[in-house]
Amino acid sequence: MDLNRLDVVDLVSGIRSGRFTAEDVVRSCLNRIAEREPLIRAWAHFDPEIAIRSARSRTDHAGPLSGVPFGAKDVIDSADFPTEMGSQAYRGHRPPYDAACIAIACRAGGILLGKTVSAEFAGTQPTETANPHNANHTPGGSSSGSAAAVADFMVPLAFGTQTGGSILRPAAFCGIVGFKPTFGLYSTAGMKPAAHSFDTIGLLARSVPDVVTVHAALMGDAALTRDQDLNPPRFGFFPSHLWETVEGDMRALMKEVLRGISNARGTICEVATPASFETITEHRAVINAFERARGLAGEAATHRQTFSAQTLEVCERGFAVSGERYVQARRALDNFRAQAEQLFTGVDVLLTPTTPGEAPAGKSYAGDPRLQELWTMLHLPSITIPAGRGRRNLPLGVQLVGRRYDDSIVLAHALWLSTVLSGTQAATGR
Amino acid sequence: MDLNRLDVVDLVSGIRSGRFTAEDVVRSCLNRIAEREPLIRAWAHFDPEIAIRSARSRTDHAGPLSGVPFGAKDVIDSADFPTEMGSQAYRGHRPPYDAACIAIACRAGGILLGKTVSAEFAGTQPTETANPHNANHTPGGSSSGSAAAVADFMVPLAFGTQTGGSILRPAAFCGIVGFKPTFGLYSTAGMKPAAHSFDTIGLLARSVPDVVTVHAALMGDAALTRDQDLNPPRFGFFPSHLWETVEGDMRALMKEVLRGISNARGTICEVATPASFETITEHRAVINAFERARGLAGEAATHRQTFSAQTLEVCERGFAVSGERYVQARRALDNFRAQAEQLFTGVDVLLTPTTPGEAPAGKSYAGDPRLQELWTMLHLPSITIPAGRGRRNLPLGVQLVGRRYDDSIVLAHALWLSTVLSGTQAATGR
Repeated sequence: MDLNRLDVVDLVSGIRSGRFTAEDVVRSCLNRIAEREPLIRAWAHFDPEIAIRSARSRTDHAGPLSGVPFGAKDVIDSADFPTEMGSQAYRGHRPPYDAACIAIACRAGGILLGKTVSAEFAGTQPTETANPHNANHTPGGSSSGSAAAVADFMVPLAFGTQTGGSILRPAAFCGIVGFKPTFGLYSTAGMKPAAHSFDTIGLLARSVPDVVTVHAALMGDAALTRDQDLNPPRFGFFPSHLWETVEGDMRALMKEVLRGISNARGTICEVATPASFETITEHRAVINAFERARGLAGEAATHRQTFSAQTLEVCERGFAVSGERYVQARRALDNFRAQAEQLFTGVDVLLTPTTPGEAPAGKSYAGDPRLQELWTMLHLPSITIPAGRGRRNLPLGVQLVGRRYDDSIVLAHALWLSTVLSGTQAATGR
Repeated sequence: MDLNRLDVVDLVSGIRSGRFTAEDVVRSCLNRIAEREPLIRAWAHFDPEIAIRSARSRTDHAGPLSGVPFGAKDVIDSADFPTEMGSQAYRGHRPPYDAACIAIACRAGGILLGKTVSAEFAGTQPTETANPHNANHTPGGSSSGSAAAVADFMVPLAFGTQTGGSILRPAAFCGIVGFKPTFGLYSTAGMKPAAHSFDTIGLLARSVPDVVTVHAALMGDAALTRDQDLNPPRFGFFPSHLWETVEGDMRALMKEVLRGISNARGTICEVATPASFETITEHRAVINAFERARGLAGEAATHRQTFSAQTLEVCERGFAVSGERYVQARRALDNFRAQAEQLFTGVDVLLTPTTPGEAPAGKSYAGDPRLQELWTMLHLPSITIPAGRGRRNLPLGVQLVGRRYDDSIVLAHALWLSTVLSGTQAATGR
C-alpha cells in the first residue's frame, strides 16, 4: 500500500486502528519526495531525520490529525526548519517558534514534514516548482510548493497563504482542493504579511473531507459541517465580469458541472455581477501595493539589493500611493464587502470558475489571479474542487464561495458537489 | 535648552535650521534616560552607541521626522535591539529586520533609540514601569514603557500597540497624547500579534501636532488634516454604558471640558449608548481569548513554563472556546461595527472619558480597559488628550472617537480641543 497516497481521513483512521504507524506514513512520504523532488521542486526545506523523530514522538492518537504529515509554505514560521520567505533576504533565517497554524496542527497530532516553496514574499515572482501533471507547466503561485507537494502525493496536506489567488489558483492548476476560509479565521501569527488587508491562511489537500477534518481541528470543533441544511443545495452560478477571459474548455466544463448539479436535484440560478465590480480590482491594486511596500520596509532598508524586479516594482509603486488614495480604496472595499451580501439572495453558495483555464505553459507566469482574488478581497470563504480536465489534459477546478463566516456551508456544499462530480464524466480524477 | 523636552515639530525645525543636530537631541534624551531610568524603568533595551551612530548617519534632513528619536514597544521587531515581547520565551531574541512601522519612521528620518517595556505579549501581566507623575502608581499597560518614556521626556515619540486599551489608557494615566488609528491603517508587519481581530499599532507623543506630523509621515501624506471643516466642530458627548464606573473627579473634568467647548463655540449633543452595547464586552472577551491562545500556540508548545499565570489562563480559556462560539462573536462584532455609524448622526466625533479616573496606586493592576477597548473592537480611530488632573494630582485624559477612516477628522478635532483646553483651567499641563 502506498501510504503517501492516502488522504488525511484514511491516515488518521489507519494509525488509530494500528494498521500502520505515523513513522510508516512519514517514511512513505519521504520516499516519494526522494523520488520526485528533483523534477517537482516543491520543497524549500525538509529534513528526514526531524520528520521521523517527530513521527516517533507521536504516541497519543487522540488528536484529529494524529500522524498526518503536512507541509507549510515558506512564509510561515517554523522552529525546526529555516523560514526563508522565498527571499535571499531571509537566507538561513530560523524563527524561534512555529507559527500559530503549524503549532495548532501539531497540537492536533500533525507532523510538519518541511517547508514548501513560496514565491518571493508570496508575490508574483515565479518559482522553479513544476506542475505534477506536466512538469513543463507552472503549478501556479504563490503557494506553488504546497500545491505541487500535495498533488504529487508527497504529503496529504499543506498550508498556503492567499492575498490574491495564491491558494485556489495553484490548487486548481494542480488538480487538488484549495480552501481559503473567511478572512482572519485562522491566526496569521508567525506568517510574514504580504498585504494585511487580504492575507489569509488556508489549506491545500486532496479531498473535501480532508479539508473539513483539518478545518474542524484548527477551529476546535469536532463536526463543523453537521446540521447544514442541503435540502436542496442552492447554487448561484456567477459567470462574473471576467467571463470573457474564461477559455472554451473551462466554459464547457462549467456547463457540465451545472448539468451534474441539476441532475442531482441541486438548484441553480444565475447571479449577475454588480456593475460596480468593474472597479474593484483597481482598488485592490492600490491597497495591495500600499501595504506590500510598507510590509517590506524593514527588509528594504538593508537588503533591497536582494529583491526581485517584481518586488522592487511593487514597493516603489506602493510608496507612490498617497495615504488619501489608500483610505479611499479601503472605504471602497468596505462598501463592496457590505454589498456582497446581496450576491447570495436566494442562494447558499456561488459557483464560478476558479481560473480562466489550465495552467499556462512554462514557469515564467503563474496565471491570472483575478477570478480568485475577488473573494479574497471581499473576505469571503472560497474553495476550489477539481472538476475535470482541459484541452491539454491539465486539471480544471470550480470555485464555491459563501457568505462571510459561512465556511461550514461552503464546505457542506463542496462535499455534496464533489460527490456529484465523482459520479459524472466531469471528474476525471487525478 | 533641554532638547529632550522639545516636541517632534520643534525638533525637526531646529535640526533643519541648524540650531542643533540630531546627535545633540539623542544625547539629551540619553542623559535624561541615564538620570531617570532607575526610577521609571521604561526601557527594555537601549544602547547609547547605536543611537548616537544612527544620529550621526542622518545627514539628509528632508524627511518629515528628521532626527526625531523614538521608542518602540518591545512586541515590535527591531534589527538593532533585542525584541523580547515582555516574555522570558523571547529572551535575547534578535529579529533580522525592523518591523514596518519602525522602518517607515526611520525612512522618514527618525532614530530608534530603543525598545520600551511591554506587558508580557501585550497582555495584562503587570510590569515594573513607574508612572512619571508618581512612581508609586502604574503608568497603565500594556504599552507601559512607551507611555512612561514619552511622559518623562526621555523621547518625544513612541510606538505602542492596542488590542484592548493598551495605548490610550497608559497615555491618559501619564498625561500625554495617545492615538490609535482606524484598524489596519498602520502595517502590523513585524508586530507580535495578540488578538489579530483587534491589534492596532498607534502613537504616543506629547502634543497633538506631533501626532499629526507622525501620522502624516507614516501614511505618506504631507498634510492630512488640511481642509477639515470645523465650522463649528461638532462633538457628541458619549457618557457610555460605563458611566457608573466613572469617578467623581473625571465626571467633574468632563463637565469642565464640555463647558470649554461651548465657550469656544463648539457644538455638543449627548449621544445615547445603544442598548445592545451591554453585550459587546462579552463578545470581545471570547474573540480575545480564542485568538490570543492560538497566537501563542507556537510559544506554548515548547516554552509554556515561561508564561505568567495571566497568559496561561487566557491560553487555557481560549482553547476552551468552540469555533462556533468564536464565529458567533465575530458576527456580533461585525454587526456592532456596522451599527457604530449611527453613533455619529449629526456629530463629527464622540467625546468620552479615556479612563474612569486616575492611574491606580501600585503596579499590580494596570487599570480598567473597558472605556478604551470599546473603540478598538469597533475599529474606530481614537485619541486621548490630557485634560486636567484628578484628586491625587495625577493626569486625566479625554478621548475623541471618529468614524472608521475619519482619522483626519479626529486629529483635526483633537487639535482644536487641545488649543481650547490649553486656554482653560482644565489643562494643568504636564
